[in-house]
Amino acid sequence: MKVVETIAEMQSISARLIAEGKEIGFVPTMGYLHEGHLALMKKAKEENPVVVSSIFVNPLQFGPTEDYETYPRDFERDYALAEEAGVDYLFYPSVREMYPGKRTVEVKVTSRTNCLCGRTRIGHFDGVATVLLKLFSIIRPTRAYFGLKDAQQVAVVSGLIEDFNLPVQLRPVPTVREKDGLAKSSRNVYLTKEERNEAKELYAALLIGKGLIERGERNPETVLAAVRNHLVTSLSGSIEYVEVLSYPDLEAIRKLEGQIILAVAVRFSKARLIDNIILQV
Amino acid sequence: MKVVETIAEMQSISARLIAEGKEIGFVPTMGYLHEGHLALMKKAKEENPVVVSSIFVNPLQFGPTEDYETYPRDFERDYALAEEAGVDYLFYPSVREMYPGKRTVEVKVTSRTNCLCGRTRIGHFDGVATVLLKLFSIIRPTRAYFGLKDAQQVAVVSGLIEDFNLPVQLRPVPTVREKDGLAKSSRNVYLTKEERNEAKELYAALLIGKGLIERGERNPETVLAAVRNHLVTSLSGSIEYVEVLSYPDLEAIRKLEGQIILAVAVRFSKARLIDNIILQV
Repeated sequence: MKVVETIAEMQSISARLIAEGKEIGFVPTMGYLHEGHLALMKKAKEENPVVVSSIFVNPLQFGPTEDYETYPRDFERDYALAEEAGVDYLFYPSVREMYPGKRTVEVKVTSRTNCLCGRTRIGHFDGVATVLLKLFSIIRPTRAYFGLKDAQQVAVVSGLIEDFNLPVQLRPVPTVREKDGLAKSSRNVYLTKEERNEAKELYAALLIGKGLIERGERNPETVLAAVRNHLVTSLSGSIEYVEVLSYPDLEAIRKLEGQIILAVAVRFSKARLIDNIILQV
Repeated sequence: MKVVETIAEMQSISARLIAEGKEIGFVPTMGYLHEGHLALMKKAKEENPVVVSSIFVNPLQFGPTEDYETYPRDFERDYALAEEAGVDYLFYPSVREMYPGKRTVEVKVTSRTNCLCGRTRIGHFDGVATVLLKLFSIIRPTRAYFGLKDAQQVAVVSGLIEDFNLPVQLRPVPTVREKDGLAKSSRNVYLTKEERNEAKELYAALLIGKGLIERGERNPETVLAAVRNHLVTSLSGSIEYVEVLSYPDLEAIRKLEGQIILAVAVRFSKARLIDNIILQV
C-alpha cells in the first residue's frame, strides 16, 4: 500500500490508472478505522481492481462546538488496517494541502438537511459535499463506498452526484454492528462503561419500531412514541431526535409507505451516537 | 460531427474516449456562434485529438430581468459552423435534461463576483459555476476553452477549478474583434445601426487607458477618468461600469501594478456590451 500526501501525486496516479483502463473503488474516511470502514474497503476490493482510501479529518464538516480537535486519530493503526483490508493507495493529505487558502466557491446543500443531524449540525453537510467534490476530482473513482450508518450523508451524496452528474457510482454499504447491536463508530471510544452498555438500546429501540411497522402500523406518531419510550426508559443519554422520514428525500410523511428511514440520535456525556434502519414499507 | 442530446449518451462517449486514452478539448457555448467561439474551437482542435462543444442557453445564469427568453438562437447555423470548425461532438441538451427536478445542492461563488458584471448580475456566476460543474462531469475534458472577453467568467472558472481540484486545464483565449475593434458577441445583433457604430468606442476607450498605463501612469483614478471621459463623449449608451482591478483575484488596487484588468460595460437600448484588456504592469 502506498501512502500519498499531495493532491498532485494522487491526481497523477489516478490519471495513470484511468489511462490503463483500471476502475477505481474509493473509500473516503476520517480515519480511526473500525470494522465499518473495513467492510467498505472489502466491498470496494471485491468490485474494483484498484482501491483508494482517504484519511482526512475534514475541518469544514465540524461545527465550532464540535469535536474536530479531539476527534480520535491513530495513523499507524489505520495504516496497518487499511493495508490488511487490501487498500492500494491511501490518500492522506494535510489540511493545508486540501484548503491552501481563501476559497472562491462554496457548496451549499439546500435539501435533505433540515432534519436528523442536519438540524443541529449546521453547515456539516456543506462541508461534507465540499470535501467529497474535491476528493472525487482528485481520485476520480468509478465507485465510491459509504456506510449506511450515516444514511443522511448517503442521501446528500446521492443528491450531489445527481445534481452535478458526477461520473461515480454511489455504493451504500449496510451498517456493521457489535454483537449487542451497537453500530460501529469511531466515536464509540468516547463512551463510559455504563454508557457503552446502554448504547445498545439505540438499535433495540429501532427494532421495536421496525417490529411495529412490520406488524402493520402505518401511523408515524405511534412508531415514534414507541421508539422514544424505549430510549427514555433504557438509557441515561439525552435524546436529540427520533424521526421517521421518506428516504432518500428525507421528507416528512403522514403515513408510513414507500422507502422510509427510522433514525435516532442520543447524546451521552462525551459522545453523540446515531443509528437508523431503512425499510421498504 | 455527432449531435448528442442526452447526458447518458454524452457520458458514455466521454468514458469511451477516456478509455481509449484520447484527450478531450471542450468549448462550452450558449450557441449563436461567432468568430470568438470559432477561435476557441480552432484552438481546441490544435491541442486535442477530440473536440466537444456544447450549446446550452443556461437559464440559471440569467437574472429575472435579463434576456433568457430572447437570447438569440439558431441551431442550424451553429451546427454548420461547429462542424466546419472541426468539432467532433456537439452536446445539445434540453433544459429539462440538464435540470430535471428539484436540486439538492447549490454552488455559490463567494469571491471575484462583487465587482464588474457580478455587481449587477446577481446569481449569474453561481449559475455559470453550476452548469460548468455539470458539463465538466459530463464531458470530462482535458482542457476547457474560454474567451477572455468574459474575463470575470475566466477568473471565476479558474477559482472553481482550483477550489475543487477539477482535473481540467483552463485555456483562456484572447478576444476576437471586428475590424473596428468591437469585441465579437452574440448580443451584438441587438444593436441598432447607430449603436453598432458607437460600439467600437468601448475598445477605443480601453486603448486610451492602456496607452496611459504604458506611458507610466500608475494612479487608477486617472486612468478610469480618461476611459470614462472617452465613453461619455463618444457614445449614447449608459455606462454601467469602468473598473480597474487585480487579475484574476479582481480586488481593488490603489496603484497599478502586477496583472490588472481594465474593464467596461455599456448599456445600449437593447444590448449590454462588455469589454476588457488584461495588462501586466
